[in-house]
Amino acid sequence: MPHNKIILMTPGPTLVDYDILLAMAQPTINHGSPEFEELHKTVISKLKKVFETEGEVILIPGSGTSAMDLALRSVVRGKSKVLVLKAGYFADYLAKGARLLGADVVVEEAPLGMGFSPEALEDALKKHGDVDVIALQHVDTSTSVANPISDLAKVAREHGSRIIVDCVASAGGMRSNLDGWGIDVCFTGSQKALGTPPGLGIVAFSREFSRELEAQNKSLYFDLDMLRKEMESTKNYYVTPAVNLVYGLDRALDLILAEGLEKRFERHRFMASLVRSALMEMGVELVAKEGYRADTVTAAYLPRGVEWSSLYKEMRKRGIEIAGGLGELKGKIFRIGHMGQVGYNELISTIAALERSFNTLGYEVPLGKALTKMQNILASRSE
Amino acid sequence: MPHNKIILMTPGPTLVDYDILLAMAQPTINHGSPEFEELHKTVISKLKKVFETEGEVILIPGSGTSAMDLALRSVVRGKSKVLVLKAGYFADYLAKGARLLGADVVVEEAPLGMGFSPEALEDALKKHGDVDVIALQHVDTSTSVANPISDLAKVAREHGSRIIVDCVASAGGMRSNLDGWGIDVCFTGSQKALGTPPGLGIVAFSREFSRELEAQNKSLYFDLDMLRKEMESTKNYYVTPAVNLVYGLDRALDLILAEGLEKRFERHRFMASLVRSALMEMGVELVAKEGYRADTVTAAYLPRGVEWSSLYKEMRKRGIEIAGGLGELKGKIFRIGHMGQVGYNELISTIAALERSFNTLGYEVPLGKALTKMQNILASRSE
Repeated sequence: MPHNKIILMTPGPTLVDYDILLAMAQPTINHGSPEFEELHKTVISKLKKVFETEGEVILIPGSGTSAMDLALRSVVRGKSKVLVLKAGYFADYLAKGARLLGADVVVEEAPLGMGFSPEALEDALKKHGDVDVIALQHVDTSTSVANPISDLAKVAREHGSRIIVDCVASAGGMRSNLDGWGIDVCFTGSQKALGTPPGLGIVAFSREFSRELEAQNKSLYFDLDMLRKEMESTKNYYVTPAVNLVYGLDRALDLILAEGLEKRFERHRFMASLVRSALMEMGVELVAKEGYRADTVTAAYLPRGVEWSSLYKEMRKRGIEIAGGLGELKGKIFRIGHMGQVGYNELISTIAALERSFNTLGYEVPLGKALTKMQNILASRSE
Repeated sequence: MPHNKIILMTPGPTLVDYDILLAMAQPTINHGSPEFEELHKTVISKLKKVFETEGEVILIPGSGTSAMDLALRSVVRGKSKVLVLKAGYFADYLAKGARLLGADVVVEEAPLGMGFSPEALEDALKKHGDVDVIALQHVDTSTSVANPISDLAKVAREHGSRIIVDCVASAGGMRSNLDGWGIDVCFTGSQKALGTPPGLGIVAFSREFSRELEAQNKSLYFDLDMLRKEMESTKNYYVTPAVNLVYGLDRALDLILAEGLEKRFERHRFMASLVRSALMEMGVELVAKEGYRADTVTAAYLPRGVEWSSLYKEMRKRGIEIAGGLGELKGKIFRIGHMGQVGYNELISTIAALERSFNTLGYEVPLGKALTKMQNILASRSE
């Protein structure tokens, strides 16, 4: 299988549409020009729609982790007490980031495969007393666990705590209703459910929190005051925007808004259930427990006798790139991304390659069975 | 003049070659795949050639300022005494960054248009006593002043101070010989003389300093330990690399190394002298004084009666995008970038547009005179 025929089914970066790639190939222009200023404003206003906020949005050159760093700086001040709700590997990033900003960080870890119910959050808040900031992942890509953000934000509001949500693996594929749910700040990267290449960090604030925004824990690169001014107009130069990636993001946002947020979220829910059905049909155990399963990524345990490195190679031979485990789950699980511009056809090819790869590696599954399951589900739905 | 015909003559972002743009339009691949790991290693090794170092190079998603932040963290520890040599607006970024890391920062400012001679540095060191770190711009884009880095690094070595050099507006257009000159660390962005779109930060360490590197002043995003591991292999995931921009940078580095560093530097020197001759022919005063003039950018005072906003508009009407002043020089100067993939033809068009724009704006210059000057210089040189 030639390298350029491999379908990208990792949970970030994700498949990028050809016209997004081509949009990025437009000539680089001056970030201070009226054309770029206009484009940038448009992109920010489209991002506000995706995050359902009338508050501010910051777009910087960087990875999702850069957005996390900047976002944390907006809520962590002095000796803030930060409660991190851990449902996977990326909670460690939140805890590390907050600690490095001087916060008093406490971590509550959910059992593997579980997220946090409102009751679990209530318990954690009782246990830890006054908590200034609650920090968690919407979806932890490492476990494919999703947290019920809407309910958790409600608890945060009742307790007067700020809530900061890592939407890296959800924004654009699952709802992030900042103003409606009362999330103070969330952040993401361009390369996940937004379906753009990696290299842009995005931080979104609720309308309410935007009014109270003060720069805290400033660093040279993450200077919220200066970045806010730049967002008002790219003529207010502070850091040079990643012009060509912004072209790509603009096109991606057009695709997202043309599809419609509700329809897009529904498509992600459906894709996730399709993948899970197929995996379960193959007797594969999912990492995330029912009720806490993400719509954007699915993590599953490697069947007995199947090694990750062999599965990765066999899948690539068959033209599919999937991801392995991170941290403690390294070598134990595999992960399939189904977000952004990924569609049913890529999922069918992925499950087909998985059936054949499993058989080659000695884990025998009836060829075509999981695919037939998918076919029945797809055919029963008005296509 | 249609928007897409405007030639980008700003000192960053700079003109990007069509094949670099097209390289970026290749499908996004998994950053943990063997193909990307290989590409990334190749890019790092090409960057080492550009910086003339056998030390380490770090490539991150971000702007030049992100690279500055990361670079500062490698040399500023605890209560380091940092001497910032100011020859323009961007020295303030260095001072701010170092201060935010807790350093004791002293700033020595050169008279406008001047850089620092080795003697001036000696004087500053005498004045300020023990200095742990000397920080300065190779070229300050805001004034187009260039410092004699080779000589200044020698002084730093003699005094046992570290030296950190901002090569944002020089790397790839002017020599940055880390190992040979004894620069400890330098940094740049992708969008200047490297001729790639903005969005990548690059930090290069000398061979010697690489051996002593310890992570200092770590933040979540700027964690040197973790980033060094990722540079060894992109399988060591810490932050997601900006895959498509790396495609572009790889192509740009091929163009740079194919041209040859010596030839490329010579071409930049020549382009700079060509622009300066043309500007002086028009009676325009240069900001940088002789002996301190950059090869990559030229800043000049607006002629009497010519307003920046009008000049910008007139130049754009004629298909040329130039830059204005920053900070205190806002509204007083204009700047022309002549670095990276910019060539003589773009310079000719720029000077031609400038002659006509000046006349339109009431600053009368004989049409064709500066161009004729350029023609004579170009023709006298073996083309």
